Amino acid sequence: MTIGILTSGGDAPGMNAAIRAIVRAGLYHGWRVVGINRGYVGLMSGDTREMTSTSVSEIIGRGGTILYTARSEEMMSLGGQARAAANCREMGLDALIVIGGDGSFRGARALADLGIPVIGVPGTIDLDIPCTDYTIGFDTAVNTAMEAIDKIRDTSSSHERCSIVEVMGRSAGYIALYCAISTGAEDVLMPERWHGDEQELIRNVLERRNLGKKHSLIINAEGVGHSEELAKKIEAATGVESRATILGYLQRGGSPTCRDRIMATLMGGRAVDLIAEGKLNRVVAYRKDGIVDYEIHEALEMKKEMGNVLYSMMPMLRQ
Amino acid sequence: MTIGILTSGGDAPGMNAAIRAIVRAGLYHGWRVVGINRGYVGLMSGDTREMTSTSVSEIIGRGGTILYTARSEEMMSLGGQARAAANCREMGLDALIVIGGDGSFRGARALADLGIPVIGVPGTIDLDIPCTDYTIGFDTAVNTAMEAIDKIRDTSSSHERCSIVEVMGRSAGYIALYCAISTGAEDVLMPERWHGDEQELIRNVLERRNLGKKHSLIINAEGVGHSEELAKKIEAATGVESRATILGYLQRGGSPTCRDRIMATLMGGRAVDLIAEGKLNRVVAYRKDGIVDYEIHEALEMKKEMGNVLYSMMPMLRQ
Amino acid sequence: MTIGILTSGGDAPGMNAAIRAIVRAGLYHGWRVVGINRGYVGLMSGDTREMTSTSVSEIIGRGGTILYTARSEEMMSLGGQARAAANCREMGLDALIVIGGDGSFRGARALADLGIPVIGVPGTIDLDIPCTDYTIGFDTAVNTAMEAIDKIRDTSSSHERCSIVEVMGRSAGYIALYCAISTGAEDVLMPERWHGDEQELIRNVLERRNLGKKHSLIINAEGVGHSEELAKKIEAATGVESRATILGYLQRGGSPTCRDRIMATLMGGRAVDLIAEGKLNRVVAYRKDGIVDYEIHEALEMKKEMGNVLYSMMPMLRQ
Amino acid sequence: MTIGILTSGGDAPGMNAAIRAIVRAGLYHGWRVVGINRGYVGLMSGDTREMTSTSVSEIIGRGGTILYTARSEEMMSLGGQARAAANCREMGLDALIVIGGDGSFRGARALADLGIPVIGVPGTIDLDIPCTDYTIGFDTAVNTAMEAIDKIRDTSSSHERCSIVEVMGRSAGYIALYCAISTGAEDVLMPERWHGDEQELIRNVLERRNLGKKHSLIINAEGVGHSEELAKKIEAATGVESRATILGYLQRGGSPTCRDRIMATLMGGRAVDLIAEGKLNRVVAYRKDGIVDYEIHEALEMKKEMGNVLYSMMPMLRQ
Repeated sequence: MTIGILTSGGDAPGMNAAIRAIVRAGLYHGWRVVGINRGYVGLMSGDTREMTSTSVSEIIGRGGTILYTARSEEMMSLGGQARAAANCREMGLDALIVIGGDGSFRGARALADLGIPVIGVPGTIDLDIPCTDYTIGFDTAVNTAMEAIDKIRDTSSSHERCSIVEVMGRSAGYIALYCAISTGAEDVLMPERWHGDEQELIRNVLERRNLGKKHSLIINAEGVGHSEELAKKIEAATGVESRATILGYLQRGGSPTCRDRIMATLMGGRAVDLIAEGKLNRVVAYRKDGIVDYEIHEALEMKKEMGNVLYSMMPMLRQ
Repeated sequence: MTIGILTSGGDAPGMNAAIRAIVRAGLYHGWRVVGINRGYVGLMSGDTREMTSTSVSEIIGRGGTILYTARSEEMMSLGGQARAAANCREMGLDALIVIGGDGSFRGARALADLGIPVIGVPGTIDLDIPCTDYTIGFDTAVNTAMEAIDKIRDTSSSHERCSIVEVMGRSAGYIALYCAISTGAEDVLMPERWHGDEQELIRNVLERRNLGKKHSLIINAEGVGHSEELAKKIEAATGVESRATILGYLQRGGSPTCRDRIMATLMGGRAVDLIAEGKLNRVVAYRKDGIVDYEIHEALEMKKEMGNVLYSMMPMLRQ
Repeated sequence: MTIGILTSGGDAPGMNAAIRAIVRAGLYHGWRVVGINRGYVGLMSGDTREMTSTSVSEIIGRGGTILYTARSEEMMSLGGQARAAANCREMGLDALIVIGGDGSFRGARALADLGIPVIGVPGTIDLDIPCTDYTIGFDTAVNTAMEAIDKIRDTSSSHERCSIVEVMGRSAGYIALYCAISTGAEDVLMPERWHGDEQELIRNVLERRNLGKKHSLIINAEGVGHSEELAKKIEAATGVESRATILGYLQRGGSPTCRDRIMATLMGGRAVDLIAEGKLNRVVAYRKDGIVDYEIHEALEMKKEMGNVLYSMMPMLRQ
Repeated sequence: MTIGILTSGGDAPGMNAAIRAIVRAGLYHGWRVVGINRGYVGLMSGDTREMTSTSVSEIIGRGGTILYTARSEEMMSLGGQARAAANCREMGLDALIVIGGDGSFRGARALADLGIPVIGVPGTIDLDIPCTDYTIGFDTAVNTAMEAIDKIRDTSSSHERCSIVEVMGRSAGYIALYCAISTGAEDVLMPERWHGDEQELIRNVLERRNLGKKHSLIINAEGVGHSEELAKKIEAATGVESRATILGYLQRGGSPTCRDRIMATLMGGRAVDLIAEGKLNRVVAYRKDGIVDYEIHEALEMKKEMGNVLYSMMPMLRQ
């Protein structure tokens, strides 16, 4: 029995912990485990390495992915997918485990349709995969962003400024919302909820200043963007010194938190179990009842709806 | 409407975030919120302070509890409980919110039996409250311990030692188990599972050394203890230099993680909602389906069973 | 005896530790200590508070400044300076301690010239005060930036990218240089050394890629700037995916490092000693032979020359 | 030209940064660099590895030492020293760089006396090498300890306890003193200053409690020890709940701070420069005027005297 493993799309802290769990669980079953470098790019070019117990030593706490990652244009074409499937057969892979986000899973689905057994493991800091309530990397990313915002708050408060901090999340506002609640921010802008009403933002800043609040903190998601312009508009309209900070790539890296190491270990372990049980073409997921799994086509049809509980607490908490 | 709030038992990171959510949610309802200092000790002596929106500013990220905490002998006697209940009446409390662990909830139950409406909010780093799957402070404590163990691992590995690290948890091994999985430890000793067979531990250390592993890491829960003796026995039996570290109180402190700030905010908010809805004598809890609540007598009758999934992965992961 | 204390200009981690040392040392001498809010702005408007031992409890580890800070236009005019001096007299200040950077010291010099005894304490993350080899906040800022860059390196390495990280330092490259050496960066751009030759940067990136290096890391100082354009040019010329991150205000905040707390304590203590010894109109500084002090006019005439030792090691280290 | 490099004695964060600087500087000169594993133990047994630029990639931020370390009994005997010198000749080493503490330098001195050119680089968290004002690892260790004590302070303050925290330093109190100042501790016990008067400690705790201070923090150096007994005595004599924490090995590990990475880079670079300049049998050191070097016999004859400035500030700061 031989299994392949790759990481694809944006990297996320905890991917290495998932790789470690998969390699060690596979070896425990007596299987051969092949690491494929640079995601689907390496699958196309046959860029692989043999995985041993030692090759995953000391990686559980490291950010990034030791298998590298890349976005593959070729994998989006039928020709590329056929070539990838042919390579899987040539490598003698009995199953391929793909750690990544929705885009990576679509590549996996294409392989499944071509007869290659696949398992998806959700790894993205954005938490934007509909079939799962948790994705590897989210907890580390929100803690990294939160700690950075805690620091910005120090200086924002000393200078009695309005600070706008832009966090990652192109189509999903989860990082923004968690950061806003956990840093005690006054406002949060998210693609799912942003009303476009800058006047309301400005009114809120003025109101807080009138209440004697020393500073304002607004968390903005990348998907809403325009943080610099917002800062300028707020300063022009209120006279309150306003500054924008775009946190950027530091949110993707760093040693994973305990939660990400644990989740990655559980999800990686489940991926191997599924193969051992002959349950193929599945996506590992986390639901309220623990680690579950879905058929990959079904998983990719799901839609995600952001809950309202946390968001609705904002007005109350910002008093 | 007037509500009281106190923290009791061992402190836990996130208690301040819960206090903040409760105070702001209470004020949002137009209520008066009274902070009681030093847990039940302050309830006996009438040591209180008026809570305002400003009095909980800038505390969401602070460890410890601004209301202080203490263990009260007097609250375990019927006389003490009667006095506490009388003081609640005198203060005009319509409800009392108690943030703490099982012991603190037993005090709250006694007050409920004497006619004082109470709400319990689970706050303890040990995760050992049966009615809930999460307790405020656990995530911060495991991350603090994990980061300390990551550092110990550096030196342990440089010296090719066997390290035994003792973490908190007198009757519960959750911190030990999460630390063991997340640091890639070779063994974990927990009150719930410890077989007392030191020879097996010693055999494992020898076996790993024979496989060429540079060092061994064993996580031990406070409830199993005897880390120093264990280190001596292992060194004597194997010739491998062995050292014990007892992490101690640093696990209780520190700025709470994002998860603890969020959970504390959600649970504190729910506590106030329950009072607003007239649902009294309840314990707020976290279950697979989110934030829930239980009648306090029922909550205190529950038993907790540690799951087996993570523990059973240890042999596979330590390869 | 009454002394005043204010923080001015950009805030820096450790300013609170300096305030604490000054207040406690002043009280120890039996003096009255007056805190002036918002720097020279508060001196103009008479916005003050009485400092007690308790008012500086628990602040040694906090970022920002509890006295707030601001930039005062008025203090640059003769009229403003006269008004500030008059207020110092009205408050009965026997001396005024100013914690801040060069700009703040120029304000202090003006007051000295008007007969108000002053002491300057160097506090700025930029290390750009000529009369001193250390300024409070620098160590925390470089560690904060270094840790952020370590995280960016994780993701940069996983994606095999060229990363340009822009750190603070408008006229001084110290933060950039320390970050470059400590993160093992391949290039550093600083206002003191930047040659403007983008082609050389591009050649270096290509050369490293040809040597099989998986990623490139370039640290850029704010004073050189244009990080986004640089990234675009490098990507266009080399085909290597390139991304810019501007770290921004998070570098100003955070709990101070041990070094900043110690330096702030020593410098704050020395400021009070100088007053006690009747040595006025001085700037506290750190030189190779420890904490020293200079006459304020002399201090402000000095020029700073960046050393060459660290910078000259770059080509050797980036192999 | 061939140089050898080893790490010896207790490990210290930054040793890897020094190894990296030495290897890259050596290669830059066109030399061969041989890594010797496990300190003098590996020198005895000929356990070596070839160092390349890649073998020191990505290690600047890692704790511990990639060359491993050990204490060698054999190196203390004349026979062992002769064997080590013979092995150096057999390996064709033109010089040997030893990173470690005083004990490791004594081994190096013995080799120098036997005709092997050596260079010592000071690496120990204890700062207890007389010829230098800085040793690699100290800054990281004090920051690690300080952050742990900050957390203990949270819980100590919530419980209004007296906390005794024992930090490393068998014969030197530098870590204790820096931690005491930087955490705002009330007392510090150090081998260099400890008077043995427990009654004074007890009086101080009582006095602070009478002044309404919520908690007491006492930092104790390993060389004074007996923290558990002290806690018991203080509790018995004062009625104030007292707890001891022994920080232990976590102080040795962790990613080095910026200062340690910079110092290690400078010192490693200087070690190679010395060899290139034919200045052999030297110890690299840091003095007020920057990186210097001393003849090894002279260096080992020096005595260290702890300064009094910081210590004498304690009574004033603890108000």
